[in-house]
Amino acid sequence: MIYLTRRYRFSASHRLHSPRLSEEENQRVFGKCNNPGGHGHNYVLEVTVNGKPDPKTGMVVDLAQLDRFVGEEVLERFDHAYLNADAESFGDKVPTTENLCIDIFHRLRAGFVAVPVARVRLEETSLNSFEYRGEEGRTP
Amino acid sequence: MIYLTRRYRFSASHRLHSPRLSEEENQRVFGKCNNPGGHGHNYVLEVTVNGKPDPKTGMVVDLAQLDRFVGEEVLERFDHAYLNADAESFGDKVPTTENLCIDIFHRLRAGFVAVPVARVRLEETSLNSFEYRGEEGRTP
Amino acid sequence: MIYLTRRYRFSASHRLHSPRLSEEENQRVFGKCNNPGGHGHNYVLEVTVNGKPDPKTGMVVDLAQLDRFVGEEVLERFDHAYLNADAESFGDKVPTTENLCIDIFHRLRAGFVAVPVARVRLEETSLNSFEYRGEEGRTP
Amino acid sequence: MIYLTRRYRFSASHRLHSPRLSEEENQRVFGKCNNPGGHGHNYVLEVTVNGKPDPKTGMVVDLAQLDRFVGEEVLERFDHAYLNADAESFGDKVPTTENLCIDIFHRLRAGFVAVPVARVRLEETSLNSFEYRGEEGRTP
Amino acid sequence: MIYLTRRYRFSASHRLHSPRLSEEENQRVFGKCNNPGGHGHNYVLEVTVNGKPDPKTGMVVDLAQLDRFVGEEVLERFDHAYLNADAESFGDKVPTTENLCIDIFHRLRAGFVAVPVARVRLEETSLNSFEYRGEEGRTP
Amino acid sequence: MIYLTRRYRFSASHRLHSPRLSEEENQRVFGKCNNPGGHGHNYVLEVTVNGKPDPKTGMVVDLAQLDRFVGEEVLERFDHAYLNADAESFGDKVPTTENLCIDIFHRLRAGFVAVPVARVRLEETSLNSFEYRGEEGRTP
Repeated sequence: MIYLTRRYRFSASHRLHSPRLSEEENQRVFGKCNNPGGHGHNYVLEVTVNGKPDPKTGMVVDLAQLDRFVGEEVLERFDHAYLNADAESFGDKVPTTENLCIDIFHRLRAGFVAVPVARVRLEETSLNSFEYRGEEGRTP
Repeated sequence: MIYLTRRYRFSASHRLHSPRLSEEENQRVFGKCNNPGGHGHNYVLEVTVNGKPDPKTGMVVDLAQLDRFVGEEVLERFDHAYLNADAESFGDKVPTTENLCIDIFHRLRAGFVAVPVARVRLEETSLNSFEYRGEEGRTP
Repeated sequence: MIYLTRRYRFSASHRLHSPRLSEEENQRVFGKCNNPGGHGHNYVLEVTVNGKPDPKTGMVVDLAQLDRFVGEEVLERFDHAYLNADAESFGDKVPTTENLCIDIFHRLRAGFVAVPVARVRLEETSLNSFEYRGEEGRTP
Repeated sequence: MIYLTRRYRFSASHRLHSPRLSEEENQRVFGKCNNPGGHGHNYVLEVTVNGKPDPKTGMVVDLAQLDRFVGEEVLERFDHAYLNADAESFGDKVPTTENLCIDIFHRLRAGFVAVPVARVRLEETSLNSFEYRGEEGRTP
Repeated sequence: MIYLTRRYRFSASHRLHSPRLSEEENQRVFGKCNNPGGHGHNYVLEVTVNGKPDPKTGMVVDLAQLDRFVGEEVLERFDHAYLNADAESFGDKVPTTENLCIDIFHRLRAGFVAVPVARVRLEETSLNSFEYRGEEGRTP
Repeated sequence: MIYLTRRYRFSASHRLHSPRLSEEENQRVFGKCNNPGGHGHNYVLEVTVNGKPDPKTGMVVDLAQLDRFVGEEVLERFDHAYLNADAESFGDKVPTTENLCIDIFHRLRAGFVAVPVARVRLEETSLNSFEYRGEEGRTP
């Protein structure tokens, strides 16, 4: 079993603000991430799939196929987007990078069937990153 | 003469949209950077100053002093901000990274007097960066 | 369960020298790392915590709280320090990055209670890094 | 138990072409990676070993010993080499980075006895990487 | 005047071998870079153009236009190619990264007319890079 | 004219302390960099040389020759060293990275004769770097 990790990049903006909190609580909890105009990041997305290399091709997955799927399901949706406006992905959830990471994992796990999606890792900045492997997932 | 470069980071959002262009022209010129909700970046800012090392201290500049100035004049203004809302910096100019780089250069050049600010370099993404050295500046 | 990794940096110096070894053995075992004046590194520290995003805030942990704790318990202690002089952390142990990594893990695991500290990763140079997850820890 | 990861680099070339596929299938499956003249990469190799720090030295492994072994068994073999010409490593297998990663793991696991080799990670480009931990290996 | 630098990546292979040298001289001069099967690299290409931001758009150049030109004139030619086979670019010249850098500069300088191409920088590995600004070019 | 930049790494320690200043002034000027035990860094050294590619070999300089010179004159001297103890390089000067950068430039400029050394760039941390091109040198 080999693990292949492919890296993608997209830029988006968000505002951390919860409808379940008062204005004051929002400011206290989220600090400058609650600024009214929002702010943004260059997200780095790592998608890890696993499988055995095909004996004929020596490859775990057709990368062009993976790129096409991630492009259509993730990058077209989130690149150059204002995340708070994406009701389908976030509903009344705050579009933190935690929630974005989980949303991307479920989109890929549910829709990409060639090989299992084992892990999604999402860098928000060079200082912060998040990993999700599903509820049954292993510790990193 | 030695050149010291100090690196800073901030996250902000912007929307590329010019009041001097029609809606259609804006979309054609700026593409997805014109999306209504805006998008954002992790900007990397490099500030270069030059001078001779002080014979007593061996240093070109007091870094704590430089950090304080950049923090107050640049990071407090632009970190976690929506750049289009900053009328003082951009007025009717589009807040492209070109214009942001020039604005930061002038703020630093005008206000930091301990040593000359020779260059400002601003990375918008890992693929794009911009340098400005003033009108009298040298080629990089 | 989501894993959040936060990155910190500090600079310190150490000399690899064991009181349990002769001078010759020290030189043979540690080579230039045994040079009398010591040497130093820019350490990169990654702290991984895990939890479920809070339904209200969408966050696993208050990053300001984590930063404050790591700042007080780790960075103030080790940044710009000569590690061999830290008897509390090392006693008669050699301040290798292995031992530093384990020491930092125990400081964080014992004292930070908001969410579990799952992993500490410490880069000594761009070529060497160390990970520790406690004795009960999983393989990386 | 602590995990030490050491990073190495080598440059090599390969052509993705399977003797079990027709010319047309090779072109369809491998695309430009099937170009007749081959192409190449700067591979980044990460070798992870695990163990307890020696109470006397504080070290998990003698890095000079690890470097010597990896140098002789991996770098001398693959650095500045055309991978397809290495019949011992690849036989009729395509020298994909999947297969190269598995081959390197087995060379190290079989021959380096000081401490267990837990993992090999191989970066093909800044966008692609592969991990292998043996058949009994854990998920990453 | 502002300088915009855009980064591209491509993978290629080459063999350092001069028809003007004997076999022995080739081996002595180029060492393992003269290995018969060749080897390869992940090249990082930085293209710097300069200009004044357009007062309407705030941009120095239309990046889509630059990407299209570099894609067609440089990436299609050199990505996943065996450089020695490119007689038009190298003729009887050795395809060192020096010569590749100069060739790319002239292709861009001659053909891209929207704004001047000021500089080409080409990384061969993380340890080696090359810059060219034309014969009239300034020191870096 | 092409500019070749080669990157080297070394680890060293220093204490910023000037014999020309009182204890109190030292503490005020240098802050935690004045801590008695010193501290250290992973320095990244970039050496830039310039020349025309040799028509026969396509190379500006024999890299093995440059590596040997930098290894003997710079790395053997400063790697795993306590810089303050190097009286020849620093005398009564404080071993700041400014002064280290200038010292390295002069060692290389004076002793390496195959091609001119145009520039030395020295990174102290990922946030700080220094460039020197000699007194007659150009702005970066």
